[in-house]
Amino acid sequence: MIFTDAESRFLTRQERGHLSTIGAAGWPQVKPLGFAYNAALETIDITGYAMASSAKYRNVQAVPRVAFVVDEVTEPTAQGAHFLEIRGIAETVTHVSTDPHLDPEIIRIRPLRVIAYNVGPDQPGLYARNVTDQTAGA
Amino acid sequence: MIFTDAESRFLTRQERGHLSTIGAAGWPQVKPLGFAYNAALETIDITGYAMASSAKYRNVQAVPRVAFVVDEVTEPTAQGAHFLEIRGIAETVTHVSTDPHLDPEIIRIRPLRVIAYNVGPDQPGLYARNVTDQTAGA
Repeated sequence: MIFTDAESRFLTRQERGHLSTIGAAGWPQVKPLGFAYNAALETIDITGYAMASSAKYRNVQAVPRVAFVVDEVTEPTAQGAHFLEIRGIAETVTHVSTDPHLDPEIIRIRPLRVIAYNVGPDQPGLYARNVTDQTAGA
Repeated sequence: MIFTDAESRFLTRQERGHLSTIGAAGWPQVKPLGFAYNAALETIDITGYAMASSAKYRNVQAVPRVAFVVDEVTEPTAQGAHFLEIRGIAETVTHVSTDPHLDPEIIRIRPLRVIAYNVGPDQPGLYARNVTDQTAGA
């Protein structure tokens, strides 16, 4: 298992996240987008309206290193801020969506490292761990 | 002027954004955070609870290329999604905040390129432009 139960629940109840990719000349890019947590594969599957023609799609085909974060604010304090950042390797795959407005091409992230802040009542505060033997900007 | 009136209004009414920095081994990182649009300098000023000891603070001191995005969803359609991404050069400066919980150290982003989606009624959809002679992952 890559994700803890608390992390899986956090990913499952969120609909949007922010993806950072590496673009031209090594410059980072960051975009808001919809996603689904693929519990069977333990991947992050990112869909979009014009995914196959997007800069992020081209970016990950050139440089697959990405970071993705899901977050929410439940109250305006440090304790009320929650996020789960996933660093990993992105691949582009074709996956027929049930939503006809979404392109069949998706970006799928295979997690390498997880950084969490106030995710799950059993482990408040910040923690990080590698979830494979590879490193991802540890 | 770096920002249009519509862009300035969009930045001013938002309180949170997402910052992408380059970390160890060139891996991107992305975090949610609070910010203020500094209208006098036309910069993005990013504050935080433990800013000076954060990874993002160290990251921008090593590699100052960053991307920052502010977004909102007003309805669940493509037309209801809005974002303003700013790519630029980050610097770390000391700026005494009125909030004693925030560190005086901040990250200040000087914009080089603006990418907007559905920001301002006069220019729906996507547009991008460089705001200086330098390029930033155009």
